[in-house]
Amino acid sequence: MVPNGVTDLGFARIDTDRQQRRGLPEVIYCPGKTAGQIVKIMEALKQAGQNVLASRISPEQAAEVKAAFPKAVHHEAARAVTIDVVDLPAPHGLVAVVAAGTSDLPVAEEAALVAERMGAIVDRFFDVGVAGLHRLMQHIDTIRRAHAVVVVAGMEGALPSVVGGLIDKPIIAVPTSVGYGTNLRGISALLAMLNSCVPGITVVNIDNGFGAGVAAAMINRTAETK
Amino acid sequence: MVPNGVTDLGFARIDTDRQQRRGLPEVIYCPGKTAGQIVKIMEALKQAGQNVLASRISPEQAAEVKAAFPKAVHHEAARAVTIDVVDLPAPHGLVAVVAAGTSDLPVAEEAALVAERMGAIVDRFFDVGVAGLHRLMQHIDTIRRAHAVVVVAGMEGALPSVVGGLIDKPIIAVPTSVGYGTNLRGISALLAMLNSCVPGITVVNIDNGFGAGVAAAMINRTAETK
Amino acid sequence: MVPNGVTDLGFARIDTDRQQRRGLPEVIYCPGKTAGQIVKIMEALKQAGQNVLASRISPEQAAEVKAAFPKAVHHEAARAVTIDVVDLPAPHGLVAVVAAGTSDLPVAEEAALVAERMGAIVDRFFDVGVAGLHRLMQHIDTIRRAHAVVVVAGMEGALPSVVGGLIDKPIIAVPTSVGYGTNLRGISALLAMLNSCVPGITVVNIDNGFGAGVAAAMINRTAETK
Amino acid sequence: MVPNGVTDLGFARIDTDRQQRRGLPEVIYCPGKTAGQIVKIMEALKQAGQNVLASRISPEQAAEVKAAFPKAVHHEAARAVTIDVVDLPAPHGLVAVVAAGTSDLPVAEEAALVAERMGAIVDRFFDVGVAGLHRLMQHIDTIRRAHAVVVVAGMEGALPSVVGGLIDKPIIAVPTSVGYGTNLRGISALLAMLNSCVPGITVVNIDNGFGAGVAAAMINRTAETK
Amino acid sequence: MVPNGVTDLGFARIDTDRQQRRGLPEVIYCPGKTAGQIVKIMEALKQAGQNVLASRISPEQAAEVKAAFPKAVHHEAARAVTIDVVDLPAPHGLVAVVAAGTSDLPVAEEAALVAERMGAIVDRFFDVGVAGLHRLMQHIDTIRRAHAVVVVAGMEGALPSVVGGLIDKPIIAVPTSVGYGTNLRGISALLAMLNSCVPGITVVNIDNGFGAGVAAAMINRTAETK
Amino acid sequence: MVPNGVTDLGFARIDTDRQQRRGLPEVIYCPGKTAGQIVKIMEALKQAGQNVLASRISPEQAAEVKAAFPKAVHHEAARAVTIDVVDLPAPHGLVAVVAAGTSDLPVAEEAALVAERMGAIVDRFFDVGVAGLHRLMQHIDTIRRAHAVVVVAGMEGALPSVVGGLIDKPIIAVPTSVGYGTNLRGISALLAMLNSCVPGITVVNIDNGFGAGVAAAMINRTAETK
Amino acid sequence: MVPNGVTDLGFARIDTDRQQRRGLPEVIYCPGKTAGQIVKIMEALKQAGQNVLASRISPEQAAEVKAAFPKAVHHEAARAVTIDVVDLPAPHGLVAVVAAGTSDLPVAEEAALVAERMGAIVDRFFDVGVAGLHRLMQHIDTIRRAHAVVVVAGMEGALPSVVGGLIDKPIIAVPTSVGYGTNLRGISALLAMLNSCVPGITVVNIDNGFGAGVAAAMINRTAETK
Amino acid sequence: MVPNGVTDLGFARIDTDRQQRRGLPEVIYCPGKTAGQIVKIMEALKQAGQNVLASRISPEQAAEVKAAFPKAVHHEAARAVTIDVVDLPAPHGLVAVVAAGTSDLPVAEEAALVAERMGAIVDRFFDVGVAGLHRLMQHIDTIRRAHAVVVVAGMEGALPSVVGGLIDKPIIAVPTSVGYGTNLRGISALLAMLNSCVPGITVVNIDNGFGAGVAAAMINRTAETK
Repeated sequence: MVPNGVTDLGFARIDTDRQQRRGLPEVIYCPGKTAGQIVKIMEALKQAGQNVLASRISPEQAAEVKAAFPKAVHHEAARAVTIDVVDLPAPHGLVAVVAAGTSDLPVAEEAALVAERMGAIVDRFFDVGVAGLHRLMQHIDTIRRAHAVVVVAGMEGALPSVVGGLIDKPIIAVPTSVGYGTNLRGISALLAMLNSCVPGITVVNIDNGFGAGVAAAMINRTAETK
Repeated sequence: MVPNGVTDLGFARIDTDRQQRRGLPEVIYCPGKTAGQIVKIMEALKQAGQNVLASRISPEQAAEVKAAFPKAVHHEAARAVTIDVVDLPAPHGLVAVVAAGTSDLPVAEEAALVAERMGAIVDRFFDVGVAGLHRLMQHIDTIRRAHAVVVVAGMEGALPSVVGGLIDKPIIAVPTSVGYGTNLRGISALLAMLNSCVPGITVVNIDNGFGAGVAAAMINRTAETK
Repeated sequence: MVPNGVTDLGFARIDTDRQQRRGLPEVIYCPGKTAGQIVKIMEALKQAGQNVLASRISPEQAAEVKAAFPKAVHHEAARAVTIDVVDLPAPHGLVAVVAAGTSDLPVAEEAALVAERMGAIVDRFFDVGVAGLHRLMQHIDTIRRAHAVVVVAGMEGALPSVVGGLIDKPIIAVPTSVGYGTNLRGISALLAMLNSCVPGITVVNIDNGFGAGVAAAMINRTAETK
Repeated sequence: MVPNGVTDLGFARIDTDRQQRRGLPEVIYCPGKTAGQIVKIMEALKQAGQNVLASRISPEQAAEVKAAFPKAVHHEAARAVTIDVVDLPAPHGLVAVVAAGTSDLPVAEEAALVAERMGAIVDRFFDVGVAGLHRLMQHIDTIRRAHAVVVVAGMEGALPSVVGGLIDKPIIAVPTSVGYGTNLRGISALLAMLNSCVPGITVVNIDNGFGAGVAAAMINRTAETK
Repeated sequence: MVPNGVTDLGFARIDTDRQQRRGLPEVIYCPGKTAGQIVKIMEALKQAGQNVLASRISPEQAAEVKAAFPKAVHHEAARAVTIDVVDLPAPHGLVAVVAAGTSDLPVAEEAALVAERMGAIVDRFFDVGVAGLHRLMQHIDTIRRAHAVVVVAGMEGALPSVVGGLIDKPIIAVPTSVGYGTNLRGISALLAMLNSCVPGITVVNIDNGFGAGVAAAMINRTAETK
Repeated sequence: MVPNGVTDLGFARIDTDRQQRRGLPEVIYCPGKTAGQIVKIMEALKQAGQNVLASRISPEQAAEVKAAFPKAVHHEAARAVTIDVVDLPAPHGLVAVVAAGTSDLPVAEEAALVAERMGAIVDRFFDVGVAGLHRLMQHIDTIRRAHAVVVVAGMEGALPSVVGGLIDKPIIAVPTSVGYGTNLRGISALLAMLNSCVPGITVVNIDNGFGAGVAAAMINRTAETK
Repeated sequence: MVPNGVTDLGFARIDTDRQQRRGLPEVIYCPGKTAGQIVKIMEALKQAGQNVLASRISPEQAAEVKAAFPKAVHHEAARAVTIDVVDLPAPHGLVAVVAAGTSDLPVAEEAALVAERMGAIVDRFFDVGVAGLHRLMQHIDTIRRAHAVVVVAGMEGALPSVVGGLIDKPIIAVPTSVGYGTNLRGISALLAMLNSCVPGITVVNIDNGFGAGVAAAMINRTAETK
Repeated sequence: MVPNGVTDLGFARIDTDRQQRRGLPEVIYCPGKTAGQIVKIMEALKQAGQNVLASRISPEQAAEVKAAFPKAVHHEAARAVTIDVVDLPAPHGLVAVVAAGTSDLPVAEEAALVAERMGAIVDRFFDVGVAGLHRLMQHIDTIRRAHAVVVVAGMEGALPSVVGGLIDKPIIAVPTSVGYGTNLRGISALLAMLNSCVPGITVVNIDNGFGAGVAAAMINRTAETK
């Protein structure tokens, strides 16, 4: 017995109502799934008329998916694969994605990709960490124009506080697992962001570019669809 | 030598530019300060033409502040004192503040108060925890109409996920230290919120109603001032 | 010198009295054991007239066991192998096994399998996480009919609280290591379950479907054998 | 706007349906509440025709409650106050409550009290810790006759494993914060219980006698009301 | 039997050689000591011809010490009392002490005091946190002239990284316990400092202004006494 | 410049005095060392007239060592290799090594081996965990005769408390990393042992059979060489 | 129904067989007990012909106990009260108790007292921490003569390793909660001791002088009673 | 748009001003980078006229770099590759690098290498751990002559305290991840160093030889360039 708005695959039941209820379709988190399972879920989503986004996909998984769906697009930097069945929302508004170091790029690109797919125009500002503040200062007036700002940083996680002290827009901080030893796989950066002396900064799980992109796009949509 | 935009009190240097740079004035966090220090900082903020908000104020501190500034308003439920020197922003938009249990109220009221002072109209939905879902369901359509939703919960911190699964608006989750034993003074609720299976939920520090209110008001302002 | 009720294999001493004392025979936990050791213990259990259950068995280990005991059954979804020497208890009563996401399935299936082998009739409700409550609500009246309910969830671990708030039966919550970053390999879900605002929920170790199945079957047996 | 099954006190909304939905009424957790608030909630519960249980009540709170409700009963050992408005369930079945040391008594008594109020006949076995096994062995045959066994222990939390190895009934283990230093306020005992080598033991939050009592009574009720 | 360079007080054996071996005399850490014990140790140090520094002294302890030694100086901001028996080293070199917020002042003043007593000229730069970078930038050229820089910060502990990215001098970072919730009594700030993306920053224990002052003074002394 | 009692290998300086100072020669901890380095250190120890013990050696490392020193003995169960240059101490006294489960054997055998090499006669009691107390009880009178008892256990680490409550001899508890999930790689067992309600139990690092064997042998030697 | 070897006080059941089974009588741990309860347990122990030791007693509890039992002895430095009913064992052998700093004295004295009551002659070496090694070196030859050495240290917990590197006797390390910030109430010292590079050091719970004294006395007794 | 002092590689923006601002050029941290990326960054640094240092390089990465830049030097013990484009600073002053065990060598060599490249003359003292104090004592007078001392240790991390108690120079302590079990991958050593009873010791991240070398070289430079 399968309720409305649910497609039952045996090993997974797809929540096909989610696009309507939440404003974005269900997404496929790839780690721990076989390429075969990913392909099956993609097929079900397509048949339900929903756009497909597979996140944290490995190069090997992506290759198998591409073989099954030649029109699938592999976003290597963002570690994602997409298949478009219906039109994406028209680009609107502005989201800024700011990243501290080159190792933070995969997480930042994931945030940018999902925000774009939810309709946001995205500006990227990468490798602007606090060790060289002049790199950030050069861009601060542009960043201030966005409806929402995603700030990605590992190690000591200081960048959101520095950006936050300079602008008046909602900031979503993303800690990354970049670092070693007492970085505790990203917990140090997470704690720094949660304890920011700048009020109004909000935080997502370690390496969770996806969630940050969704949050920024929701804010951007709110700003544009009043 | 004191830079522009800074008032030097000896024991504190007030960042009087913050209203312009960040859209809200500097706030006085009361724990660990004497009533005398609080009064002095309030005096300096007033002289700089800035509205005053003192957070986490104790009843004893509040009484001394009221003696010094008879026009000060004590918001007991929110554990705050305010003094208005200039007009607050005109009420606009909508922010929802949702709280799981009665013990979460002080944190929820703090969020509501700061959002109101930054211009948001605020709707409160309290004591709607997941142990009795019907209490939440009754209000979900109203909650969905807000530009931003603050969800406050202690113990297992499940409420943001449940609310988040039902609406398409930005959610700021506030873990509280309510609970005992393995609640680890709020860390359990924090971890639950960071690991929500609903993408787009963002999180602030434990008991940080203030930060959640600022974030919600910034989103609300973004939505209203396009 | 080997006491009664113990079979000494050199590297292991099998507690052959356990069936009588505890109502279930000793079980073989496979990680860290060689296939050869597993086969030897199985042989000893069989010779002692005891049914065999090997848990957390890898596909490679299972293949070698099957080669040694052609009548062995490999339960892939539950990552287990069984060999029946004596009759299992006749199916009786009812246990419900509820799981939040598809990644939680191996743990849920392990719980279901062991409960079945201890005589319980088992109903499975999978992929009914809190991000889409309608999927759960559809089944809640059926779940309420069980003598005991096993609820399996990773990430924020909210499902047991939501189920628990709706029924009046004993709930055994099983946190899984599903998630990343601050999920801390399942500790976040565990903490959420221990801090549930719904009284009466009890919890087992992370990924411990086996223990949850035993507990549920013991309750089911108690209910049926008064 | 207050939904059916909810009484709105302003600072709390009482879930008056809970007795029917869950089989026990809402309970008042006293820490952090004023005696005045406790009295008000009790009044509301009474008016809704529900029996009252206030847990973790301090002697001072209890005295004020007794002044307001002369018929209230103060269970000192269990740190609880009860007021009976309707008849309690008739005593039936059997629950055993086993405690390791004298310092574990308040938690054990809380478990026993709530189980009794939910209709269970309760046998108590206190100060039978593993340092003197003969004290436990003397009672093991009696303990084995219960439908469910609550085992309370602090420090190394070994008692549930020892009891569990000897009987075939569901065991609910309650870690207590008894101990010092590396007991980590009960986390050591909790971890020991979660890692028990005896399958089927389930665990509740530290010092959560209340939750253990509810779980045991639910099992007992299941066993008796088939 | 008391070795050379040791004075035996029964409850304490004073290492009177330490001035010669380490370049600073033994210091009295006051928490947990009675005023009477503090006075006795001070007496012994004086008789050994050593200057006295009592750290983390409470106002009550300080009052009793002042009664016993009228020439003792109470440094309230630094929470210390000193008595000079021999001349302090002549002031030389330059140490900068930088603090993020007003709540960090006691720790910063302790660092400044001990550095001064070891001969350093000290410049103080207080309340220059990252939420208002312009306050720091105003002073950065002066800070750069010091032989060693102590940077004190609580909450997210970002200030050392920002200062460190701008100068080429040794930086000693001091995390403070300022903050709440996930600040974990200073561990968040500590972790941030240990994970700084700016190489060459070293860190001391939480709130350990004393150790930071000693380290800075040793560097300053090294620079000046070549 | 190499002091007396030290052999300098460039990458290691062997403390050849240790036998005399501590009563056992320096030991080679193999993880992270190449087989070549192990062979070189062995050669140096042999030339210094010292017996060789290499601990935690892998089968691959052991094979290379055997090729270099055909008289070397590989103790597989204890994961060690020994080479005897001088006579071992004559066997004397008695040490008991007790282990809870078969997975704890490598650690238990390491303890037994090192104790034997330091002169202790060793009795082994394996697979006597608390889930089946009758297996332990059978041997308790023999165990009581030892001068020192090593008790090895993973998971909930309850065995040392149970043994300790029954005998009056020094007990050295060894937690192992056996288990999963909340066993936290042995920390749960360690905490249980440190919090034992039986006074006089002492504890070593997780999986540190070597240290436990040394401690037991030192006690045994003390008892025998008065 | 009270088994042999147990005295039932209602709130406590005293294990009067323990002297015979374990070689020391049951001890009263005072924190959390009322003076009245302590007096009652003492009375029961006395009537069972057992010597009394109450540990961690507060000055207020001690005063009430002294009022009830004028012959009771209050050992202030060890925070203990004793009452002797039968003769203590004749002093024999030698135990050394070594402590790093003056703040570690209460723990060290507790270890010394209990060892003395179990018959050990005890030598004390206090305030010999690693910051001034010459203080330790002066005594090392005396320490080496003991059958067992208790080493007490807080902060970085380095003293056991330094002592252990110099002698060939069993060492029991006791971490204390002395320190602040990252000392984590003694966990830092505990971890240091568990990770000692000197094999054969064993460790007890934080501040557990009592357990260390028992372990040392058991070793001493083993050495003397061969 | 690329600011002055920044070279934009697409995946990285090199801070070519850093040499001037901080006194050392940007360094390439190799883990997680492909050999191709490392080569590209090296090329950019060379073209900007900056000396190259690649840290934590694997043998495989080093081989590819050597193939691309035949003049590159592979420092195997320090796990680094360097390419010199301009003259290094003339050797001056003195830095001592002290390491406890042979497993700590890679970290110690990294510290020594970077200090040398920043102009310091470096003396190395390896394998002088606290288990054999005589090995350290032999060298203490030489160590005392350095301007700054780097002390590297894993396990219990006691060496910095012992060295620090004997000299009057700035000490930078480097915890290493050497050890197992409760060493917690270096956190035990880190905690010990942060809690040293010797004031003035400062600490860097686990295994962070690079940062320690920079800090020591900065102190050395300060001392030499007054």
